[in-house]
Amino acid sequence: MPLTDDIKMISIDDHLIEPPGLWVDRLPAKYHDRCPHVEEITEDRVEPFYAKEVHLKKGMQVWRYEDTLEPNVGLTATAGLDVKDRNFSPVRFDQMRRGTYDPVARLADMDEDGVWAQAPFPSLPGFSGSKFLRGKDKDLALLCVRAYNDFVLDEWCAAAPDRYISLIILPMWDQDLSAQEVRRCAAKGARSIAFPDNPAGLGLPSYQTTAWDGVFAAAAEAQMPLSMHFGGSKIIPFVSPEAPQAAVTALFGITLFNSMAELVMSPVFKKHPTLKVAYSEGGIGWVPYALMRMDQVWEDYREYPIENNVDPDRRPSDVVREHIYSCFIDDPVGIGLRHDIGVDKLLWESDYPHSDSLWPNSRANAQKVFADVPTEEVRKIVETNARDLFRFH
Amino acid sequence: MPLTDDIKMISIDDHLIEPPGLWVDRLPAKYHDRCPHVEEITEDRVEPFYAKEVHLKKGMQVWRYEDTLEPNVGLTATAGLDVKDRNFSPVRFDQMRRGTYDPVARLADMDEDGVWAQAPFPSLPGFSGSKFLRGKDKDLALLCVRAYNDFVLDEWCAAAPDRYISLIILPMWDQDLSAQEVRRCAAKGARSIAFPDNPAGLGLPSYQTTAWDGVFAAAAEAQMPLSMHFGGSKIIPFVSPEAPQAAVTALFGITLFNSMAELVMSPVFKKHPTLKVAYSEGGIGWVPYALMRMDQVWEDYREYPIENNVDPDRRPSDVVREHIYSCFIDDPVGIGLRHDIGVDKLLWESDYPHSDSLWPNSRANAQKVFADVPTEEVRKIVETNARDLFRFH
Repeated sequence: MPLTDDIKMISIDDHLIEPPGLWVDRLPAKYHDRCPHVEEITEDRVEPFYAKEVHLKKGMQVWRYEDTLEPNVGLTATAGLDVKDRNFSPVRFDQMRRGTYDPVARLADMDEDGVWAQAPFPSLPGFSGSKFLRGKDKDLALLCVRAYNDFVLDEWCAAAPDRYISLIILPMWDQDLSAQEVRRCAAKGARSIAFPDNPAGLGLPSYQTTAWDGVFAAAAEAQMPLSMHFGGSKIIPFVSPEAPQAAVTALFGITLFNSMAELVMSPVFKKHPTLKVAYSEGGIGWVPYALMRMDQVWEDYREYPIENNVDPDRRPSDVVREHIYSCFIDDPVGIGLRHDIGVDKLLWESDYPHSDSLWPNSRANAQKVFADVPTEEVRKIVETNARDLFRFH
Repeated sequence: MPLTDDIKMISIDDHLIEPPGLWVDRLPAKYHDRCPHVEEITEDRVEPFYAKEVHLKKGMQVWRYEDTLEPNVGLTATAGLDVKDRNFSPVRFDQMRRGTYDPVARLADMDEDGVWAQAPFPSLPGFSGSKFLRGKDKDLALLCVRAYNDFVLDEWCAAAPDRYISLIILPMWDQDLSAQEVRRCAAKGARSIAFPDNPAGLGLPSYQTTAWDGVFAAAAEAQMPLSMHFGGSKIIPFVSPEAPQAAVTALFGITLFNSMAELVMSPVFKKHPTLKVAYSEGGIGWVPYALMRMDQVWEDYREYPIENNVDPDRRPSDVVREHIYSCFIDDPVGIGLRHDIGVDKLLWESDYPHSDSLWPNSRANAQKVFADVPTEEVRKIVETNARDLFRFH
């Protein structure tokens, strides 16, 4: 049995549902009607939600932040739900499994899943905290970012410091404030930064610019890798408006190749030679193709006079193998190709409590996926690579 | 030597540069200042070109169609150019290699490349002919589409019927006219249709609708596969505005996964059980991951009540293996995984005269890529699969 009992599985991509009091418990009373707070719907009505309308029904709970609405959607908390009951309807907290929003209750769910530790991304703020970027009152937005990080560090991860890897978010509209927040949280023991896979997708300066140098320098100094979850930059796969959601879900992992190509063909790693990136939920079966394809293109384009940010001296695949970790839930194709990627740069995830998660069968499934993999490789992939990368010993 | 001398390499993705007289030679004189025609630039000036501006210099040649401008760009005709000389500057016809726009001259280039046959996509009209979709005068646009197809059938492919596979384009703004054009060209011996990888990207009805049923029925009836080249729907990978072109080039192949997921999770193949699709320039190394990932998602989502177009009875990978051909230039990762895709569904391409082409070393490179592949598999991949699919015997 390659995945032996002494191996503690460490998942580097999970999701916490913010408890209703996260912000109101931490912010001054004058902000309580504008900071994110949970509202009970007392009569049926329709409200705008991004480009669509959402039917709010009596008895539902929704998040309010300034003048925006965010219903809790079922797919973000599907753990324990039968497939047939999964849908996009808003739910109430008391309809969600307690482990989705309670760090102590979650430990029992992790035990049931055979998973020792998790790294939870934010939900309401978006996978990279981009909700606060769009906040109108930036003083309030900064307080909201800090409150989230304090919650993650002081409450969620403090509930079991050896079982939760902390991911913080940044006030991304201001890179100086962002670098300060990295340092503030690093001093409190933060392990990683939930960062957009491509800031340009959020209308922020791109990896090609100097804007993030202070942030990346602070992250490298604190040895905090950037954890990039697909969707963190609101980059969504192109399908028709009528396409089934299944098509979008199948395509989301590969959007991280877009991030990889942009990052590797940017000055970021040349300027920050110790900076690391961990991709979340991207899968790994496409990575060998991506490395091959980038190298092929690089071979030609590195000599083009117009290609300023293509490093002519270093193959893209070598840059990836030094700086970027790829991650999977259940990817037999990628496991078969693991040596083409590099066993030292693979990580594993459980994605609790999202619909891709295999909870409560994560470990049982991993036993099958790793059936032909030597134990010492399995140990790296599911445990020690993550411990080293996140300084989580 | 697996790629033996008796194997005639058939490329299913190449590009013709339309000769200057293609439309003016075929359309009535009253259209000559509005149909696509080549204009000599007699003084330096700046003109809009899509969202950018292009500096037109005295001595250049550009295409005019109605009130739009299209400079010939160097990357579309790089065959024979040293890498250092490749750039995006407009060029003159007399600066291009003759084989780019002359079907007889091209035969010698193909001989030099060790390639027996090619299937050339259009250049000025876009890979799927979408330029005429945006024409203001739809009577003129229809004449332009027919003139292009007549040129391909009567002039280009007629120059060597056993060495050119004909790809026609459609008047996509009108699906009845499109079906008529399929039948008109089928009667003249057309072999395939250059079709958008996702019509929704062009603002056209999607695969999820009934709009294309007449076209697909006509194509299936005539045994004409849909040849889908990446970029044919103007779907481009997301990178920042400052990203190197190399990043975009590296990412373009994988955009066909978007098309694949949408197509497979649509009613198209259920309604048209003999219809086939050939992807061009997508590469193949990502396909095993794509098949695995779609199957994983399908396993869950097929039971979601909201997923109307997910066929609950047929795995996406089985749909792909029956209907979709994938294609590569130089993809050792994919060749290693060929049995996960299906050797019967692989095709090869030379991409002459674009920058990805290995001309004049296509065959020599293929010798290396196929070094460990049995001859009978090589024969299928580079010759007989294409002969069967395009009825090209």
